[in-house]
Amino acid sequence: MKDVASAAGVALKTVSRVVNGEPGVRPATADRVRAAIDRLGYSRNESARVLRRGRTSTVGLVIEDVADPFYAGLGRAVESVAAAHDCLLLSASSSEDPARERELVRAFCARRVDGLIVVPAGADHSYLRPELDAGTPAVFVDRPPGPGLDVDTVLADNAGGAALATRHLLAHGHRRIAFLGDQPTIFTAARRLHGYRAALGRLYDERLVSMRAPTLDSVREALDRMLALDRPPTALFTGNGRLTVTALRVLAGRPAALVGFDDFELADLLRPAVTVVAQDPARMGRVAAELLFRRLSGDDGPAEHPVLPVALVLRGSGELPP
Amino acid sequence: MKDVASAAGVALKTVSRVVNGEPGVRPATADRVRAAIDRLGYSRNESARVLRRGRTSTVGLVIEDVADPFYAGLGRAVESVAAAHDCLLLSASSSEDPARERELVRAFCARRVDGLIVVPAGADHSYLRPELDAGTPAVFVDRPPGPGLDVDTVLADNAGGAALATRHLLAHGHRRIAFLGDQPTIFTAARRLHGYRAALGRLYDERLVSMRAPTLDSVREALDRMLALDRPPTALFTGNGRLTVTALRVLAGRPAALVGFDDFELADLLRPAVTVVAQDPARMGRVAAELLFRRLSGDDGPAEHPVLPVALVLRGSGELPP
Repeated sequence: MKDVASAAGVALKTVSRVVNGEPGVRPATADRVRAAIDRLGYSRNESARVLRRGRTSTVGLVIEDVADPFYAGLGRAVESVAAAHDCLLLSASSSEDPARERELVRAFCARRVDGLIVVPAGADHSYLRPELDAGTPAVFVDRPPGPGLDVDTVLADNAGGAALATRHLLAHGHRRIAFLGDQPTIFTAARRLHGYRAALGRLYDERLVSMRAPTLDSVREALDRMLALDRPPTALFTGNGRLTVTALRVLAGRPAALVGFDDFELADLLRPAVTVVAQDPARMGRVAAELLFRRLSGDDGPAEHPVLPVALVLRGSGELPP
Repeated sequence: MKDVASAAGVALKTVSRVVNGEPGVRPATADRVRAAIDRLGYSRNESARVLRRGRTSTVGLVIEDVADPFYAGLGRAVESVAAAHDCLLLSASSSEDPARERELVRAFCARRVDGLIVVPAGADHSYLRPELDAGTPAVFVDRPPGPGLDVDTVLADNAGGAALATRHLLAHGHRRIAFLGDQPTIFTAARRLHGYRAALGRLYDERLVSMRAPTLDSVREALDRMLALDRPPTALFTGNGRLTVTALRVLAGRPAALVGFDDFELADLLRPAVTVVAQDPARMGRVAAELLFRRLSGDDGPAEHPVLPVALVLRGSGELPP
């Protein structure tokens, strides 16, 4: 910053004003400062990042629901990495509401967070462009941003995991495998449907699919409808932890061949114990936060897109015969 | 603030320093400012609250572990109330470490949070005195602060709930009832031990009590030791959700007469389903946050200490005979 000031022949404060877009600098002077910045080899983002107003040592985290065990585990891991960097976490729940997500990100940015970790609810993130240009890095986790935003993402192998679960049930003799997914507008739900469908091939039957928000009523209706079919399902693949638990509650102890996406506490203590495709939410949060802090410490390489593996955990429910 | 400055014959900045507890003011001058504040009819807290620097619309929440379902539910409720007041939440986990708790509170205050909600890990909160005096309200939740701090608290009826659980097992014929509590330095663990002991009266036997952090090893050791006694326990009272789940895992499906403190997801789906004394973490968070926002909007009445009721939820495990 001193180099820029001396190269442009202006005061340090003037450089700071230009970089932060504050008023009180004559256009000709501002041009001189910008030319000096370019001459000294900073990219705009880099200069903005390095020169912008002092860090607040605060990171903003938007997740779907801070009380959901999956996101709570992810958030806790982000908090741990942030704490290791002496950073605090502003965290909030979007409740799957794109307007709320945008509002939260804006409120975080108004408080000058150093960076953002976002589980997006919406599909349009152009509102983030000015913040990114101003040097506030963002990492999208669990779900990617809408089109046109070239930021880091940390996703799980959703389609692969769904195919794994489906093939596992096929291998145990099932041919009528139902899928309870979440709303198809949710990226992970759509990817898991894709993997399920790909694994089933010509066995796919849309009457065995329900893509709705997980409530006791929606799950009960879907299961009642499917079980009343001429050829009802003999196995169930539930598309996330909330759906698995809700389906188990609707089944109320009737043993059913079932594989769930996402592990959950006590899955091993139920009878039958529940076979799952397990993500690692803590790892997802850790990888995302480490990526964010690498950006904050100056790494301006191309956007990265790690895809985390999932693991099939056999416990009994997924190994029941038709 | 100008009136105070002119009445005390000091600069505006000096008033601000005194009110905010900042250094750099001679004691005699500070006394003059305080006298002027009193003379002008402000109560100290009120003046501090009104005169202190602009609101940040940020509230700080320190809990034990943001990923623990009990505290995650509590945190979500705090977030909802904060959102209704257009406030964001800085939240962090103390991990039962008093030094970390203090560090977090200080970091929150350095970022000028408007108020604090604290599940304390430590027993000495004198470090909070300057913030409280400067008009930053704090509400302690789940556990009270250490001595000498007259702040709002929102607690559950821990002793009453423990007595309820114990009497329930007594009523089902048990005379040897073990208690697995958490570390006795934790307020809630101590209160629950108290309620258990009071309900047992002369049936109390310290060999049936284990007060240790809930790990698989500590719970397994405690149960092994107790079951090897001449007169082993016939029933188990577990002192929080973490202990209940850990005990169930150690018991590995052996049905045991058991009542747990704290409800948990899937308690109804286990066999036998698990009888619990249920707190309402969402209500606890809501009551605490509403109290905090009442303080922030000027309510300077005496500290309040609501005690929330708990409820016995009969599901089967607590109704097994000896």
